[in-house]
Amino acid sequence: MRITGIDTYDIRFPTSRELDGSDAMNPDPDYSAAYVVLSTDTGFSGHGFTFTIGRGNEVCRAAVEALAPLVLGQPVDDLGEFARRLTRDSQIRWLGPEKGVVHLAAAALINAAWDLAAAAAGKPVWQFLADLSPQQIVDLVDWRYLSDALGPAEAIDLLQAARPGREERIELLRRHGYPAYTTSPGWLGYSDDKLVRLAAEAVADGYRQIKLKVGNSLEDDVRRMELARRTVGDDIRIAVDANQRWDVGEAVRWMTALAPYDPWWIEEPTSPDDVLGHAAVRRALQPSGIRVATGEHVPNRIVFKQLLQAEAVDIVQIDACRVAGVNENVAILLLAAKFGRPVCPHAGGVGLCELVQHLSMFDFVAVSGSLQDRVIEYVDHLHEHFVDPVVIRDGAYRLPAAPGFSARMRPETLHRFSYPDGPEWA
Amino acid sequence: MRITGIDTYDIRFPTSRELDGSDAMNPDPDYSAAYVVLSTDTGFSGHGFTFTIGRGNEVCRAAVEALAPLVLGQPVDDLGEFARRLTRDSQIRWLGPEKGVVHLAAAALINAAWDLAAAAAGKPVWQFLADLSPQQIVDLVDWRYLSDALGPAEAIDLLQAARPGREERIELLRRHGYPAYTTSPGWLGYSDDKLVRLAAEAVADGYRQIKLKVGNSLEDDVRRMELARRTVGDDIRIAVDANQRWDVGEAVRWMTALAPYDPWWIEEPTSPDDVLGHAAVRRALQPSGIRVATGEHVPNRIVFKQLLQAEAVDIVQIDACRVAGVNENVAILLLAAKFGRPVCPHAGGVGLCELVQHLSMFDFVAVSGSLQDRVIEYVDHLHEHFVDPVVIRDGAYRLPAAPGFSARMRPETLHRFSYPDGPEWA
Repeated sequence: MRITGIDTYDIRFPTSRELDGSDAMNPDPDYSAAYVVLSTDTGFSGHGFTFTIGRGNEVCRAAVEALAPLVLGQPVDDLGEFARRLTRDSQIRWLGPEKGVVHLAAAALINAAWDLAAAAAGKPVWQFLADLSPQQIVDLVDWRYLSDALGPAEAIDLLQAARPGREERIELLRRHGYPAYTTSPGWLGYSDDKLVRLAAEAVADGYRQIKLKVGNSLEDDVRRMELARRTVGDDIRIAVDANQRWDVGEAVRWMTALAPYDPWWIEEPTSPDDVLGHAAVRRALQPSGIRVATGEHVPNRIVFKQLLQAEAVDIVQIDACRVAGVNENVAILLLAAKFGRPVCPHAGGVGLCELVQHLSMFDFVAVSGSLQDRVIEYVDHLHEHFVDPVVIRDGAYRLPAAPGFSARMRPETLHRFSYPDGPEWA
Repeated sequence: MRITGIDTYDIRFPTSRELDGSDAMNPDPDYSAAYVVLSTDTGFSGHGFTFTIGRGNEVCRAAVEALAPLVLGQPVDDLGEFARRLTRDSQIRWLGPEKGVVHLAAAALINAAWDLAAAAAGKPVWQFLADLSPQQIVDLVDWRYLSDALGPAEAIDLLQAARPGREERIELLRRHGYPAYTTSPGWLGYSDDKLVRLAAEAVADGYRQIKLKVGNSLEDDVRRMELARRTVGDDIRIAVDANQRWDVGEAVRWMTALAPYDPWWIEEPTSPDDVLGHAAVRRALQPSGIRVATGEHVPNRIVFKQLLQAEAVDIVQIDACRVAGVNENVAILLLAAKFGRPVCPHAGGVGLCELVQHLSMFDFVAVSGSLQDRVIEYVDHLHEHFVDPVVIRDGAYRLPAAPGFSARMRPETLHRFSYPDGPEWA
């Protein structure tokens, strides 16, 4: 099976009209995807995308097209080699390296290749991954720059150690799903009434954790946090998310003011590039029992490695499309397992829930073997555009069963929301 | 004066034909520039660019075009505000933040605005900058994420402390220029004979430092380093540059093997994102007296801040086009001054020598006030394409006198090397 065609789409949803997705750094996002379809010389195709919030989505699409010649005509039988072709081209690597637009574009293509390979194998991606041997899993990873923290031999040991109990864990997922938390109540653009109503609904729907956006106004945040805590009670975890709004000192002061309402974690307190800054925030907040989480904007495995080495985070938040797709996320799952930190993926956006559920299920079955303090973000937007959307029941993601990566948008969506010529935008 | 038009060009030089610029990570670069011309409602225009090595240059150009609406119609009287408009757009920021393609594109536009403003003021950029007050200089910087290391008040103190002796330093630059080192002998694709010949020529031309590319073969590197040392003698500094080729342990082993030939610094021993890795390499090499240098691929001021906080580098290597142009480089110069580290800019490529000379001259006149262990890289390629090329005499950059940023390519170059339709490529 070889890739015989690569088609790209600039898909944008006008989410800024309702302030869905509004936070302290992103007041008016138009959730978007640079979307790619791989055709093959068989009946199978592969769909993938990277997520953006509007302007510049066309730049990601241009980057997908710049990378496309590297994999056109190639097989997808060795997905480690496939991913490294896309991240190691010396000329294009100059534009990162391994970060920003070219890395987002590589993610779209790599994720599409996983959709293709899993679809051809007749398995959902989580299972396709979990059925690989430890050696095959390790061969997916680009180990460059990781050896001072973890190498392939130790990773194989980790994976071997996680093998006992796999079938029981799969059975548990089949029965109960994978725990989710919801960000839907907490967007900054929502009124207090809407926050309270949605927080109460979240608890009624079975969620054990919700998340609030913070960082624009401390006074507002104290009021919203108090309202949310009063609404959900003491047993529900409330995470807060500053979306990189603060410097180090400001993060500590702000979170100290919110500490009486027992926030479970502070997410993205400062720049995603600031490993030492996160470590300083974490040290300062440890007496208050507030955890530090980050990752959705962490550019690659090298920065994740340092966040773990520096004990800068309590919770590792992978993103399906910011690092180089499944392969680099496998590296990050292995690093997190080595350092004993739970992985709680970032989701929401466009189709991120659909993708990350596979990574977390794989993590539980084959890598960490644990659900302790692990939750996948859930946001109830835009799922209707997918052929095989996530299913949430009792605050948990149901185990995906359909072959592939759950990444396919409906044909009518690809038509209607194409930018700038689709009917929604024209 | 307002910006009334923004034209972009994809300019590529076929440098891979001669292996100029070949190193351990970049075997066959085609030196390129995403080039931009700002037109105004006066007679003045501004030229700027970002540097790439070929494939993907069109993606940078697309990103310049995505950013252009943010500054079209805007004045350039407040260059701090101008730069922040380009790096803080919430939707485009998602594609970085502040890194990769969108940051390279912001650099092209910001540098063009500096060319424009300095040209309109009738001054070269170094002087235009040096003539600003400390408050005006501080107002150029985006201080977000820096306050745990340096804030505007302390920066003003640093700048005030550097004011005495300015005129003498300008006079010194006028008389002797700013010391340069040359990388021309050391490209990996060159034969031993060419290396020896060019190294001898460099010494004869007055350079006190040369640089060799290393990292492909330890056996070759030992032989080349021995040849170079024998050719230049013990009084000439020889820096080596691995272009990110190694992991931490490999960097230490390799450099320990080269230590007998007294390398002055090891540049880019590992990933530019690996602050902790650089710190580990530096600690291990300190007994050998080998300095650690990095920066040409460091994405932004936040990572530079950490390299300094973690004592991970001896030498700070700014790049004119990778961070957000003059403004972010002013932040990095201030950080380096605060931490007492010399700045030795990365140059070569296309037009990087032309740009960074202004930044180093400004640093000497108004920020660090020192030439101690400071050198600007020089590579003798592609200067003929510029209207106001650098002038090197006795191993030193002459003080630029023409108004602007020395950034303008000749019109015939913009025509001939336009990709893919110019005569050189068609």
